[in-house]
Amino acid sequence: MKANPIVLLTDFGLSDVYVGVMKGVIASRSPKAQVIDLTHGIPPQDVRAAAFALKVSSAHFPMGALFVCVVDPGVGSTRRVLWARSARHQFLAPDNGLLSWLQGEEALEEVRHVANPALFSKNPSATFHGRDIFAPVAARLAGSLPPVMLGPRIEDWRSLPLPLPKKEGGGMKGEVLLIDRFGNAITNISAEQARGKSVSFGRMELGPALDHYAEAAEGTALALVGSFGYVELSVRNGDFAARAKAQKGDPVHVR
Amino acid sequence: MKANPIVLLTDFGLSDVYVGVMKGVIASRSPKAQVIDLTHGIPPQDVRAAAFALKVSSAHFPMGALFVCVVDPGVGSTRRVLWARSARHQFLAPDNGLLSWLQGEEALEEVRHVANPALFSKNPSATFHGRDIFAPVAARLAGSLPPVMLGPRIEDWRSLPLPLPKKEGGGMKGEVLLIDRFGNAITNISAEQARGKSVSFGRMELGPALDHYAEAAEGTALALVGSFGYVELSVRNGDFAARAKAQKGDPVHVR
Amino acid sequence: MKANPIVLLTDFGLSDVYVGVMKGVIASRSPKAQVIDLTHGIPPQDVRAAAFALKVSSAHFPMGALFVCVVDPGVGSTRRVLWARSARHQFLAPDNGLLSWLQGEEALEEVRHVANPALFSKNPSATFHGRDIFAPVAARLAGSLPPVMLGPRIEDWRSLPLPLPKKEGGGMKGEVLLIDRFGNAITNISAEQARGKSVSFGRMELGPALDHYAEAAEGTALALVGSFGYVELSVRNGDFAARAKAQKGDPVHVR
Repeated sequence: MKANPIVLLTDFGLSDVYVGVMKGVIASRSPKAQVIDLTHGIPPQDVRAAAFALKVSSAHFPMGALFVCVVDPGVGSTRRVLWARSARHQFLAPDNGLLSWLQGEEALEEVRHVANPALFSKNPSATFHGRDIFAPVAARLAGSLPPVMLGPRIEDWRSLPLPLPKKEGGGMKGEVLLIDRFGNAITNISAEQARGKSVSFGRMELGPALDHYAEAAEGTALALVGSFGYVELSVRNGDFAARAKAQKGDPVHVR
Repeated sequence: MKANPIVLLTDFGLSDVYVGVMKGVIASRSPKAQVIDLTHGIPPQDVRAAAFALKVSSAHFPMGALFVCVVDPGVGSTRRVLWARSARHQFLAPDNGLLSWLQGEEALEEVRHVANPALFSKNPSATFHGRDIFAPVAARLAGSLPPVMLGPRIEDWRSLPLPLPKKEGGGMKGEVLLIDRFGNAITNISAEQARGKSVSFGRMELGPALDHYAEAAEGTALALVGSFGYVELSVRNGDFAARAKAQKGDPVHVR
Repeated sequence: MKANPIVLLTDFGLSDVYVGVMKGVIASRSPKAQVIDLTHGIPPQDVRAAAFALKVSSAHFPMGALFVCVVDPGVGSTRRVLWARSARHQFLAPDNGLLSWLQGEEALEEVRHVANPALFSKNPSATFHGRDIFAPVAARLAGSLPPVMLGPRIEDWRSLPLPLPKKEGGGMKGEVLLIDRFGNAITNISAEQARGKSVSFGRMELGPALDHYAEAAEGTALALVGSFGYVELSVRNGDFAARAKAQKGDPVHVR
């Protein structure tokens, strides 16, 4: 039987040894575990960005996969570590709202406080729980530890408000959630919310959200229904964020 | 039987979830597939850089490996998706010239238009074919789908002109193809073309292309026969591109 | 029997094909080898940074793992390639001091000069030994080649001075060894050396080294006992290096 894959989502970047060391710990304790990097490029301590990355990605991973999410500004404080289960996946994350945007098939059906120190590294550090708590627990879960061994079920885990656009006049005011590698500004406005409306960013009128880059001329700024189901502001084969000086948090309007 | 490895070559970078999601789709549909990252650092939409990366790398991968190449400025347009086969490897790529510099043992012997929507994700997006077309098809090929199921054989796939240096007086004029992480400027001038000649960049006279860094003094700018078989402009344990303000496309002369 | 994992530590970065090609060579010659990336983000040619990364990481990897370390400013010169063995692990590295900070359980018990060209790629380049020497030898070792086949035992391998802080008045003067992704300045002052003392950086008085971020207020500069066992200069959920303009090599005092 092939173990369930372990999927890593962190803000550790790849220039340091942090991610590699987590993989070493997992390989030491669960030599056959398959590890997949979702991304380590979450901006430092940006829990909302991690929650969004997880929300738009988890459906594409195998049934039973364990997501190990370490974006953890509260490391070393009294914040809890959570294990959770949806109908399709398992999750480990700090109790900081990172898991709170999972919906539909990924809605959490069981949440536990990971509180059994016998599962951690000996003398865990106060600053690198990825290595000392998350990785060893993940390795044990991949080795089919029953979740009841992790700690007690809880209901009071922390939630972050969903970043929903607000009604404004006849339209809506949303925001830029993140800028991707290509300079696309991904917003919190869903395809449905934008339907039949026109998108604007500052003084830029972008027109209705298109379905294809190919509908726009090369180098033109446009609004697009992106692959995550949200409106994205783009320049076909160009960099919208650079051109429009767009940043995370900037307002976006549909009217 | 071990499946053929899947080798990923994209311009997606690693700061977003794009690469991770592709791996999730592959793992969902072909749990035993081995995935190897060639690189995800191709500059956005730079098909020539991808074609060069593939040309200089493919020989080093196992017989039967499937290269999944997603540098795709035409995503969502009518450009086709190609499957191709050389004597040693398989390839998936957009029909934009990315495969057109493969030569010798890697010359394409069979090319098909990937046109069977039953192999794609349901309702594929118009902007993320890596997730919705390339990854699912790759997983099926790793699971030994016969290529004839992909779509019809074609002969009219798109070719990009090889970036060959031009004769000029008694010498040749080439160009910088890419700047690597170390600041080496890798040119399109082959070791043979440079033999017995002297290399110059702007007003910098670099002398004949050396075989070893060790032949030059620390900190000296030099021309070198690089590990890909092309002339590289380097500073031993330094950064040529920073010192010489070299950029992709800059002319390089041998005389 | 599962082969011992191969752990890669290089300064190649991930924007070029260098790391991917090494993995291709390993997969070609040892298809079942498990490869784990420790990091490829060592600053170019920074042997000390690689030695430190290895020193603080190796204990977390499985017994028997083979570390392939390619930070190699002397590539193509007469510098030797080393294979070494501690009580727990194996190592391949250039003979430039990269292995010389391993201590305790990781102290080297046997060192050999890798000198058998039959194990290398044919016609190895003078500039990419990662591809032409390290990767093929690693693949053979993963396939259980007896180390005696590599070359003769040696005792005169190169050592780098350990970066130890110096006594100064009633305290010690250390230095910043590296800046991590979060802007933490990791020093060469051990937790023991800092105990009961107060840490300063330039004109910044940081107080005693804390055990937890959570002991400090958000946004405050502080000294911390980091997860590697060394004093780190940090800003809780902020970037110390940016705030204090700290760089590698800067002095740090404990008094």
